[in-house]
Amino acid sequence: MTQSEHQMQSEIMQQPEPMNAMSHQSTRLPLETLETPALLLDEARMNRNIARMQAQMKRLGVSFRPHVKTNKCIDVARRIMSTPTGPITVSTLKEAEYFAAHGVRDILYAVSIAPNKFAHALKLLRSGVQLTLILDSMETAQLLAAFAQTSNTRFEVMLEIDSDGHRSGLAPEAAELVPIAAYLHSAGLVVKGVMTHAGSSYDCPTLDGVRAMAEQERAAVVRAAERLREAGLPCPVVSVGSTPTALFAEQLEGVTEVRAGVFVFFDLVMAGINVCTVDELALSVLGTVIGHQAEKGWTLIDAGWMAMSRDRGTAKQAVDQGYGLVCDLDGTPLDDLILVGANQEHGIVAHRDGRLAGVTHLPVGTQLRIMPNHACATAAQFPHYHVIDSERQVQETWSRFHGW
Amino acid sequence: MTQSEHQMQSEIMQQPEPMNAMSHQSTRLPLETLETPALLLDEARMNRNIARMQAQMKRLGVSFRPHVKTNKCIDVARRIMSTPTGPITVSTLKEAEYFAAHGVRDILYAVSIAPNKFAHALKLLRSGVQLTLILDSMETAQLLAAFAQTSNTRFEVMLEIDSDGHRSGLAPEAAELVPIAAYLHSAGLVVKGVMTHAGSSYDCPTLDGVRAMAEQERAAVVRAAERLREAGLPCPVVSVGSTPTALFAEQLEGVTEVRAGVFVFFDLVMAGINVCTVDELALSVLGTVIGHQAEKGWTLIDAGWMAMSRDRGTAKQAVDQGYGLVCDLDGTPLDDLILVGANQEHGIVAHRDGRLAGVTHLPVGTQLRIMPNHACATAAQFPHYHVIDSERQVQETWSRFHGW
Repeated sequence: MTQSEHQMQSEIMQQPEPMNAMSHQSTRLPLETLETPALLLDEARMNRNIARMQAQMKRLGVSFRPHVKTNKCIDVARRIMSTPTGPITVSTLKEAEYFAAHGVRDILYAVSIAPNKFAHALKLLRSGVQLTLILDSMETAQLLAAFAQTSNTRFEVMLEIDSDGHRSGLAPEAAELVPIAAYLHSAGLVVKGVMTHAGSSYDCPTLDGVRAMAEQERAAVVRAAERLREAGLPCPVVSVGSTPTALFAEQLEGVTEVRAGVFVFFDLVMAGINVCTVDELALSVLGTVIGHQAEKGWTLIDAGWMAMSRDRGTAKQAVDQGYGLVCDLDGTPLDDLILVGANQEHGIVAHRDGRLAGVTHLPVGTQLRIMPNHACATAAQFPHYHVIDSERQVQETWSRFHGW
Repeated sequence: MTQSEHQMQSEIMQQPEPMNAMSHQSTRLPLETLETPALLLDEARMNRNIARMQAQMKRLGVSFRPHVKTNKCIDVARRIMSTPTGPITVSTLKEAEYFAAHGVRDILYAVSIAPNKFAHALKLLRSGVQLTLILDSMETAQLLAAFAQTSNTRFEVMLEIDSDGHRSGLAPEAAELVPIAAYLHSAGLVVKGVMTHAGSSYDCPTLDGVRAMAEQERAAVVRAAERLREAGLPCPVVSVGSTPTALFAEQLEGVTEVRAGVFVFFDLVMAGINVCTVDELALSVLGTVIGHQAEKGWTLIDAGWMAMSRDRGTAKQAVDQGYGLVCDLDGTPLDDLILVGANQEHGIVAHRDGRLAGVTHLPVGTQLRIMPNHACATAAQFPHYHVIDSERQVQETWSRFHGW
């Protein structure tokens, strides 16, 4: 066992007790009792977002393998998984460890496997997890096959397909596609199928663009599956996924499963491409006014980039939301205020248009809810979600984990 | 006690044991045994950086109150504090809690105090911590004075001065300065002095600019101190601080203490303004090659923005380093490669000039060290530092904490 694995195991072992203890707080507390910054999760909004995705999956006739990289929290995952044992998608092996420790069994690790993670993947398999790996090159295939032989293990893998040119994966027509699958098959590994992620859907300026991207994503991975089948190789699983394409795909013929994660919370980037509306954003950061620079029209709050993250995903959209959109405690945008700047623990609230006259005076101590650009990045800055109800009371506090 | 405080206390209580256990690992391990991404701390570089700051403080004849927001780790803090009990500067009360639990007593919380943190500050004071708060308005002064009266506590405070217009603080000539200090004094609080942070020094394009900013920072806070003394109010402490101004101040007449935090590690933003050189950067992220998109000149690694953070601080500098500068395992820049893009767990390595021909082939499994734009932001993404020696062996693993 490597040093990292030792640490990880000791952390995982320690997790269930304090987490369960914290998840079962019984008294409802008003937001005013929270020290800030704090991460709020609006349960009613989250539930509506989940119901929307589930209805879409049902309409499309595909199975759903939610991506838990956004939430990293069993309490959220239990609300989006089809069964208590999964399936789920993860972006790190620490996620796989954590969710496995909470009873999840069917896990797709959706980042091309690095050789220094083979031993860890093996440990998960031997602990009873049905872990599927992905890869996109003969180089990785050969390394994994060698390790599979040495460890006498029948790894299950999927081939990653590049449907939009935004990062990794084999082109659907790549010459190597069939040889890699054939090699893995002959080396005794199980090739379950093909998967892709149309990350470029986040950059589509219109919903028609998102619909077209969903079709491009579907066509790419279905074409790769056809090529494998034409070569006589089995390809039972055909997997696509991103929140925009999942929600706006018109049909998914040939696809067997969909993956998505951000849909649970949504964020300003999603609202900026009309995948959701601002009043559907379930995640926000609670901050408090700590001062003013009146002559500049600034209100200072105690939520800076450490709380919001440095993500500036709306900077390239039609409406730049700075480091976040400022809302009142009900989650309603307040007087067109945004976080125009951020230091580590200071956020600078000002009017979007930079005006200095007629700036709302928010007294020191006023609490504000700041909607984030990117839910994955903002949530990662916090150890807990404070789950709030429609009366702005904290019902429960859910833990999320951090790091690798 | 609020819900947050309950959680914080239970976390703090749990920390010392596992942290000590992890800090005293005895075997040296090669980097190749680490699962990636992992945060590396080059001990020799860190020690040189610390010695440089200490020599500068000695030359300037000021006391040093290191900012621990960058490291959030007692093992690092012990190497930069003048004594085991401090003094230190913190940016959150969780930092104060954690360092107090490790024996630190003299703590300046350098963000204007929010009313929802009064009770927590009181708890720290009552546990024996000499906690100093800051504020910059009559509004906060009145709220704190009311709380001080109710709780029968003599809070110690400093007034925050704005020396460069970049965020909070009173202008040195502000009409409210003397009235606020006089009010606090009359309300029975202890006004220890004035403090400022010239955060604009990060944006100085030349070292002459940094030197001028150091003088501007000094002059602003010394002027504020003079005004208080002229009004017959005591002002024993005059505090300045930022890594660039601390290292390049030519003289600090009238200043009693300096605060800085990034100097321990340095980062690409600091190198970009010539405050340090790239070979002084002590912090890096270890990543592993997981694939290629050869026709684009891309190498994919398993360190994306979750590992590097979304900080793009070099984007506005003369040399944009993308999401990080790619180095070999000795920490030497490699063939002018940078992280040109990042997804959550994917980093895209490519040549800085975008060339496609003659791209170095880095085989799958190759480990790389990525120098970060901003040490505070990148370190915050990790639960541990892997401390490496000059032979690239991991000597110890130090824990750092996360969140609020």
